[in-house]
Amino acid sequence: MRGFFVVFEGIEGAGKSTLMHRLSRELERRGIPFKTTREPGGPRTAEAIREVILQRDLPIEPMTELFLLMASRYENTVKTIIPALEEGYIVISDRYRDSSVAYQGYGRGIPIEFIEELNEKATLGLKPDLVFIIDISVEEMLRRIESRGGEKNRMDSQEIDFYRRARRGYLLMARENPDRYVVLDGTMSEEKLIAKIMDIMRQKMKEKGVGYAL
Amino acid sequence: MRGFFVVFEGIEGAGKSTLMHRLSRELERRGIPFKTTREPGGPRTAEAIREVILQRDLPIEPMTELFLLMASRYENTVKTIIPALEEGYIVISDRYRDSSVAYQGYGRGIPIEFIEELNEKATLGLKPDLVFIIDISVEEMLRRIESRGGEKNRMDSQEIDFYRRARRGYLLMARENPDRYVVLDGTMSEEKLIAKIMDIMRQKMKEKGVGYAL
Repeated sequence: MRGFFVVFEGIEGAGKSTLMHRLSRELERRGIPFKTTREPGGPRTAEAIREVILQRDLPIEPMTELFLLMASRYENTVKTIIPALEEGYIVISDRYRDSSVAYQGYGRGIPIEFIEELNEKATLGLKPDLVFIIDISVEEMLRRIESRGGEKNRMDSQEIDFYRRARRGYLLMARENPDRYVVLDGTMSEEKLIAKIMDIMRQKMKEKGVGYAL
Repeated sequence: MRGFFVVFEGIEGAGKSTLMHRLSRELERRGIPFKTTREPGGPRTAEAIREVILQRDLPIEPMTELFLLMASRYENTVKTIIPALEEGYIVISDRYRDSSVAYQGYGRGIPIEFIEELNEKATLGLKPDLVFIIDISVEEMLRRIESRGGEKNRMDSQEIDFYRRARRGYLLMARENPDRYVVLDGTMSEEKLIAKIMDIMRQKMKEKGVGYAL
């Protein structure tokens, strides 16, 4: 596909949204055509699914959540991501298929093979050209959530372990696929992070032969 | 599991709901403990998913629908159906795993093997003890939808063919598993149908050693 597909992954509070926002401004300034999206979400049906997943008071089983995420992912992939890539856009997504592997797989214990099989169906085999894993420790995550006035107190030790496993999952994926995954230290300054992101994208887009100069 | 799990399947307008209602009254009269449920739906999360699926104005891809149905099925199975069966209830469901095979598989063309693999995960391997396929022709379905003031006019020939394929799927499943599937002619009178249903349930429950006398 002609475009370039970049995904930001990482545990809560890592700073994905801020960096995506910064990256968008950099691309805008250079007049490079891009689209941003997020998971779960995207097209209207996927946003409706997002609402079900994020309803805090609805008890939800990990397997149920997995199926819902796949529903949202399929809808977003066929209606938003693939058409945009085919038109040559840079597509930047807040989370994609690896979130399910990290959270429902490493985090909740659903077999990774099963998740990857569903991922293949839900993405029509699409893999990001580049995945930035914005990495922070779980301790740093808790500090950040607290400083946002968040719900750290509601998080029990079981939930904290869940995030530890998810983080470990991300780092394992990165180790296994060093060509497509880049782990960035999420405690670095925004300036340093965005400079690194731009550098790496420039290089990878050149390798793929994408015709925009970053 | 101790209880007995009965599912009603069939295309739209076949009369599943009416028969389930009649069956419920027969069981009530005999003081037999039972629970009814439906798909998609059941527990609160599954009902929230049902709303997304049934929103008429939301365009939805067949694969997205399949994942959503699996999410609802898993939630309903682990929270409602299995606990009720373990307590010895008769559980009667309006649709279950075979609806996905008939509709998304035979109807929409998603590979049956993939659907059955998801079904195994979404049901934890649970299969109904007995499936009643209430069978009507697609012509009869259209007549019934029309007489209910329904939206026959909105159904184009492609949609009509979809129901033909789904019906064929149900009949194939019944032929392949004659011990668990019973096809009933949905144009018979309600009295005849309910008498047959009671007869067959009586026999199958006896075979399974369920301790209620119908």
